[in-house]
Amino acid sequence: VRRREREVDLGYARLDLERPERCGLHEAVFCPGKTPRQIADILRTLRDKERHALATRADEELFRAVSVDLPDAVYHPAARCITLDAGPLPRPTGRVAVVTAGTSDIPVAEEACLAAERLGARVERVYDVGVAGLHRLLGRLNLLRRARVVIVAAGMDGALPSVVGGLVACPVIAVPTSVGYGAHFGGIAALLTMLNSCAAGVMAVNIDNGFGAGVAAALINRHR
Amino acid sequence: VRRREREVDLGYARLDLERPERCGLHEAVFCPGKTPRQIADILRTLRDKERHALATRADEELFRAVSVDLPDAVYHPAARCITLDAGPLPRPTGRVAVVTAGTSDIPVAEEACLAAERLGARVERVYDVGVAGLHRLLGRLNLLRRARVVIVAAGMDGALPSVVGGLVACPVIAVPTSVGYGAHFGGIAALLTMLNSCAAGVMAVNIDNGFGAGVAAALINRHR
Amino acid sequence: VRRREREVDLGYARLDLERPERCGLHEAVFCPGKTPRQIADILRTLRDKERHALATRADEELFRAVSVDLPDAVYHPAARCITLDAGPLPRPTGRVAVVTAGTSDIPVAEEACLAAERLGARVERVYDVGVAGLHRLLGRLNLLRRARVVIVAAGMDGALPSVVGGLVACPVIAVPTSVGYGAHFGGIAALLTMLNSCAAGVMAVNIDNGFGAGVAAALINRHR
Amino acid sequence: VRRREREVDLGYARLDLERPERCGLHEAVFCPGKTPRQIADILRTLRDKERHALATRADEELFRAVSVDLPDAVYHPAARCITLDAGPLPRPTGRVAVVTAGTSDIPVAEEACLAAERLGARVERVYDVGVAGLHRLLGRLNLLRRARVVIVAAGMDGALPSVVGGLVACPVIAVPTSVGYGAHFGGIAALLTMLNSCAAGVMAVNIDNGFGAGVAAALINRHR
Amino acid sequence: VRRREREVDLGYARLDLERPERCGLHEAVFCPGKTPRQIADILRTLRDKERHALATRADEELFRAVSVDLPDAVYHPAARCITLDAGPLPRPTGRVAVVTAGTSDIPVAEEACLAAERLGARVERVYDVGVAGLHRLLGRLNLLRRARVVIVAAGMDGALPSVVGGLVACPVIAVPTSVGYGAHFGGIAALLTMLNSCAAGVMAVNIDNGFGAGVAAALINRHR
Amino acid sequence: VRRREREVDLGYARLDLERPERCGLHEAVFCPGKTPRQIADILRTLRDKERHALATRADEELFRAVSVDLPDAVYHPAARCITLDAGPLPRPTGRVAVVTAGTSDIPVAEEACLAAERLGARVERVYDVGVAGLHRLLGRLNLLRRARVVIVAAGMDGALPSVVGGLVACPVIAVPTSVGYGAHFGGIAALLTMLNSCAAGVMAVNIDNGFGAGVAAALINRHR
Amino acid sequence: VRRREREVDLGYARLDLERPERCGLHEAVFCPGKTPRQIADILRTLRDKERHALATRADEELFRAVSVDLPDAVYHPAARCITLDAGPLPRPTGRVAVVTAGTSDIPVAEEACLAAERLGARVERVYDVGVAGLHRLLGRLNLLRRARVVIVAAGMDGALPSVVGGLVACPVIAVPTSVGYGAHFGGIAALLTMLNSCAAGVMAVNIDNGFGAGVAAALINRHR
Amino acid sequence: VRRREREVDLGYARLDLERPERCGLHEAVFCPGKTPRQIADILRTLRDKERHALATRADEELFRAVSVDLPDAVYHPAARCITLDAGPLPRPTGRVAVVTAGTSDIPVAEEACLAAERLGARVERVYDVGVAGLHRLLGRLNLLRRARVVIVAAGMDGALPSVVGGLVACPVIAVPTSVGYGAHFGGIAALLTMLNSCAAGVMAVNIDNGFGAGVAAALINRHR
Repeated sequence: VRRREREVDLGYARLDLERPERCGLHEAVFCPGKTPRQIADILRTLRDKERHALATRADEELFRAVSVDLPDAVYHPAARCITLDAGPLPRPTGRVAVVTAGTSDIPVAEEACLAAERLGARVERVYDVGVAGLHRLLGRLNLLRRARVVIVAAGMDGALPSVVGGLVACPVIAVPTSVGYGAHFGGIAALLTMLNSCAAGVMAVNIDNGFGAGVAAALINRHR
Repeated sequence: VRRREREVDLGYARLDLERPERCGLHEAVFCPGKTPRQIADILRTLRDKERHALATRADEELFRAVSVDLPDAVYHPAARCITLDAGPLPRPTGRVAVVTAGTSDIPVAEEACLAAERLGARVERVYDVGVAGLHRLLGRLNLLRRARVVIVAAGMDGALPSVVGGLVACPVIAVPTSVGYGAHFGGIAALLTMLNSCAAGVMAVNIDNGFGAGVAAALINRHR
Repeated sequence: VRRREREVDLGYARLDLERPERCGLHEAVFCPGKTPRQIADILRTLRDKERHALATRADEELFRAVSVDLPDAVYHPAARCITLDAGPLPRPTGRVAVVTAGTSDIPVAEEACLAAERLGARVERVYDVGVAGLHRLLGRLNLLRRARVVIVAAGMDGALPSVVGGLVACPVIAVPTSVGYGAHFGGIAALLTMLNSCAAGVMAVNIDNGFGAGVAAALINRHR
Repeated sequence: VRRREREVDLGYARLDLERPERCGLHEAVFCPGKTPRQIADILRTLRDKERHALATRADEELFRAVSVDLPDAVYHPAARCITLDAGPLPRPTGRVAVVTAGTSDIPVAEEACLAAERLGARVERVYDVGVAGLHRLLGRLNLLRRARVVIVAAGMDGALPSVVGGLVACPVIAVPTSVGYGAHFGGIAALLTMLNSCAAGVMAVNIDNGFGAGVAAALINRHR
Repeated sequence: VRRREREVDLGYARLDLERPERCGLHEAVFCPGKTPRQIADILRTLRDKERHALATRADEELFRAVSVDLPDAVYHPAARCITLDAGPLPRPTGRVAVVTAGTSDIPVAEEACLAAERLGARVERVYDVGVAGLHRLLGRLNLLRRARVVIVAAGMDGALPSVVGGLVACPVIAVPTSVGYGAHFGGIAALLTMLNSCAAGVMAVNIDNGFGAGVAAALINRHR
Repeated sequence: VRRREREVDLGYARLDLERPERCGLHEAVFCPGKTPRQIADILRTLRDKERHALATRADEELFRAVSVDLPDAVYHPAARCITLDAGPLPRPTGRVAVVTAGTSDIPVAEEACLAAERLGARVERVYDVGVAGLHRLLGRLNLLRRARVVIVAAGMDGALPSVVGGLVACPVIAVPTSVGYGAHFGGIAALLTMLNSCAAGVMAVNIDNGFGAGVAAALINRHR
Repeated sequence: VRRREREVDLGYARLDLERPERCGLHEAVFCPGKTPRQIADILRTLRDKERHALATRADEELFRAVSVDLPDAVYHPAARCITLDAGPLPRPTGRVAVVTAGTSDIPVAEEACLAAERLGARVERVYDVGVAGLHRLLGRLNLLRRARVVIVAAGMDGALPSVVGGLVACPVIAVPTSVGYGAHFGGIAALLTMLNSCAAGVMAVNIDNGFGAGVAAALINRHR
Repeated sequence: VRRREREVDLGYARLDLERPERCGLHEAVFCPGKTPRQIADILRTLRDKERHALATRADEELFRAVSVDLPDAVYHPAARCITLDAGPLPRPTGRVAVVTAGTSDIPVAEEACLAAERLGARVERVYDVGVAGLHRLLGRLNLLRRARVVIVAAGMDGALPSVVGGLVACPVIAVPTSVGYGAHFGGIAALLTMLNSCAAGVMAVNIDNGFGAGVAAALINRHR
């Protein structure tokens, strides 16, 4: 009996093939700082080893360059991601709500949706319901209360996760976004708001880290 | 005709006697770093020149020391202030609402109330209505909507001024408080939230600066 | 009787139609991060619902792209704003003074002027009167003292609002600008100066937030 | 049928009685800045309204003062918490692992354990297994892999959550602690490490916020 | 002919005896972190080597302990300094003006005065003339304009050096003080204001560094 | 007798014509954020009012645009400045030494040289003598010791001013430069080094502020 | 054959017994946050397992409490450390020079000396040779040049490691100390100076981390 | 006998020819901010004086420009460096291991490898072995344990040096890289992790400073 392969060594990268079994998720490629050729090679190698492959922070120009080498890659413009699947994805189950405070937070939210969906979560989107017009949020409470976990992406004052955290009984994952200016410091103001949330049970990920939020939500969403 | 006195020189301080006419407010004493004797001298001198006198950030021990020299000084424990009046204060008019997110923000709010009241504002208090339990705030909206200006004091995530700013049509003055820990940085997190408020028309003052907020509110509250 | 519409859902944005009644101001569009098409759609929708529409932080190139879809939009180059009005604006009343320390602070000041004027304020401009040449400011004191509220935009050391605050009896709104270099940190130095103002009654908004200052000033300027 | 009470107004505090139904948790008291009398009153009021009551960040001296008014309060020295229960707690189910990097992180971890246990979680402790001696952690992997969620408290370099995140398939909640000195900035260094974790699915709470981590873990641990 | 001694080695300190010739000033002792015995030994050794000796940041209790060993040491309470002279000090010449914004900045200013006077400067004090009451400063302009160099100590907004720099034709040394709270960061806000001064020719020293400002002013004040 | 003109109002700028008499220096133009046309207008107006005019932070492209309107303007490429003189400059007197730690600090140093020379100082340049090769500095000590004031520009660790301050008996003006990377924070590391200099009498200006250092040095260099 | 013990579990701590073989050093106890009883237990357990034991950051009062339980523990007051040895220490070999800029840096340096000596290094001390009096350092160059590695502890401007790094051909370990005030930020200024050193080959450890510097120096000092 | 030349003065640069003897390394050129002509001149001058010459942070475009003047220069694309040698390099001895956490850290690591190799070190590369997949590192332990010193380059959480430090008995040099986003602050998060490493003996250099790490490692690697 052959022992299962643990990694593939591409010289510049060692692909961790055990990650699905060990961590419940696939290795993902963070595109900035990698060449289109490297990205295509990593995606193809993962697919060839029967792993679903995802590359984040990819603009359209990068996708076009990658797809020269990899014509069956798929681009997700709203989430700025490239995917290459090794077969059918899991059937969506459970329920993850993904909320944004404003329009500009949508790309981060879409990255979260894609990451969560690929790990088997059914996702509901609730966008542009920031606290300056509370009725927009309050009108969608039933939807939020059906979720097993809620992701809230917000820039500017980052106040929305605290408000949501005071309205639902499931875990809340807060994603600060870099949307803002001046004393926003590229998302730090929103991040601090979330870390200091007066609603217990709110957890935070890094600024603009929709992918991480989506993965965490999918892990929470799974029944065990 | 004698020209009006512009200042009194105490050696270590020059009291600005024109401030009421020029700026619409009285000189106030920030106690930290001054001796009880200096504080008593300044208060007495102001009163003797027919000015109402206010000293902020005074604990009870300091008050006791000051009142040895100045037995008619009055202590306001909730606001941690000492006052010494040169006569009757103005009759309260208009309406300033003073709101806090939590119990620990009350001392800062009371400093604001006292400062505003002494400059002629009628003040309404709405305390402990933070965003983690929104119904507490929403149940008091009518009261907030009757105000000419709302002061909102909040520590932790500092999210309350944005929510209030989205519910009222008057100016909102946000006062970050130092209530919090860890990545709160002694109030910086709340201050940043307020500066990045997604509700237009929210203005901020320094951390724990209830006095400044009260003065600004009183100036706004005045009809001109 | 049909209940008034509360919001319009554009998919990527939910326009808050109640804002004028609830908050005393119109929804405004912060352009960075939105496409010309989105901006044009939002402006047109607001106008169609009989709201005055304003888009901030728009350069000329963006305006040209927007005006392809929206030929009756108007560009305000000094304020870098686009407007689209649903009818006549309110008649200017009261008096708001808008002051700058230097020439480079003027775009931020003009954004404040436009925002305040559209909400009914009469505006007086006093530009380039920074503290390194005090006689320029002192020569215009009468003008400042006639105002109901003064906006002061300053970069560099941000010292001007403190000086103005010591000379007038109305509220002062300080707007730090990103004009500076080195240890200015893109406006943080000026912001901190303003938050620590030794003149009571000075309030601050975010760096370069002329719009917010103008809205707040207009709310203060209104008689109630 | 009498409508259920939503809040109790103590003057300085409005107790949110709906929180268990709305948010799945009880109101907790953050002790710093409150008097023993206030803490005792809040705890007693909650218990009288049939809520379990918990007060965090309480040292022994504070407990002694509180227990004068409230002799049946219980002190948890390892977690520095006071509890007062309205009846039996829920039976522990599921499994939450609570891990620390060092000995000094234990008080924060114990606060997390207590918070999670009171919300129905069965808790397993794995203490002092920091990355400078990896074999200590690797020897307890089976235990970690049985958990539905893992809390990792770490000060100093804060590296442990990344290592744990790479070894388990459940969500990981990272709690930075203020244990460290110099360029640790009271926990900021560890917090940043956790926010930048190279293991996907790691979420962070505020520095020393064991309570928040415990609540979030309990919410994740519940089957729904 | 014996070569002049360059240093004295006390084990824990090497006293630099050449400093007067090389740098135009005497070695000074920064007290925090040193024992009374060490301070007394250093002062005595310097005096024995015919140097004037100065110790800064000394409170009265420290002075009492030092004077046990060194009964002819002199305490300067306003400047919080101890001196021990090896003979007569230089005759005061030139003119250095030392200005403060407020009363609480006086200890820092007095340290500057003492340091400058001991290096031969004639000093004029102008205290409590902050920008919130400009007439206090403008009334003393003639005095400032007679100086060869002006030291300005200010906390809070730190705005005074910019105003002074716009009124005089000599160099201005700005000393930020730690007087303030909240977003003052122990003097950082005032320091940044001074570094970003819109008046050319303003130089800054470290927060509360009255000694350094006094030394620099004395070096500038000397005719060469 | 006609009273001397105090200012010229260009609409977007008020030129302060009294500055030479009041402050001992000419108004200078900081180019970033101004159009070539504005710069040319300001320079010409100053010259027409018989003031020497200087514009800083000008690259060659900006100069070419300015010189279309102003053909007799002169470009100083090493200092990145434009000048337009109203007549002969003052004869150089005294002695200012301008030192750099490295080659990349030279543009900042040259700006200082130009500013000082135009205010009448004789300038000596000592470039690339950083502390990693001390013999380069020690070999030029005589030259430094002849100066009335020394300017030291340094990036990276910013250590050179402390070393120079320990070797000369005149005032030292430290100019941090933005030369560095990583934890240099665009010059902050060097600035902090200089503010914390262990050599008394070292003063600092803002990062890359060669102009301010040159002005201050010229004011010190003047005999009065 | 019994397998060697890898760890001892004290409940609150797991002592890593393999560390000497694996990492070349003994486990050390960082005292802050531990009780005297815990410290005594850990030291005794290590000694009983035939390891040399060291506890850092211990003041005399802590030592007295520890020595009640552990009468053969030894206190090193200059280094603020407690030791308990399991037998003779290694014979000193090689040569490590430990340098300080000032007197107040000595406790940190002594901690480094003790840590290095216990791991077999011969140590030479060169104290109070900061850059404001360079001749003190230059007079000891021969001693520095004989070392295999030099540790330099400095607070204030932290400039000394750069100067030393430019004078010796061995590795330099820079230890920033918290000695300073104002914009020193408890050692950050000195740390940044060292990280930005213009001398190649300078490495830094955390603020006041004499222990870490001593261990690293001892590892470098060993011949292999 | 002619005394050896100590420096070459190019006007804009003074080349330190003694550095190899004094510091054990060659002068290197940091390219940013220098013209291709200056770089070529410096490299040629060093080579002509029989020194090996290295220029760091050079992209391909810069190399092409430099090689016009200097056709025998060699480009190292992985390390982004240019070299020009005065003869054969030293024979590699000892062993330095260079480790990276991820693929994007490789350019920094290669700069370290080149710097170390040119100073005589034999280098082993171990790339992409970050802590999220520990088995990749544990599988290469023997290789790491043969090294005299290990360099670890890591961005993101910067956790790898702590893990390596707990596994090897030689000194570890940690190089934070700027690989990351959001609260990574361009490498600060990784730098702080490394400075706070819980493994004793870990030293840090500036962000992305592969060159400095390589030099320090080569100095440690040398037998003396």
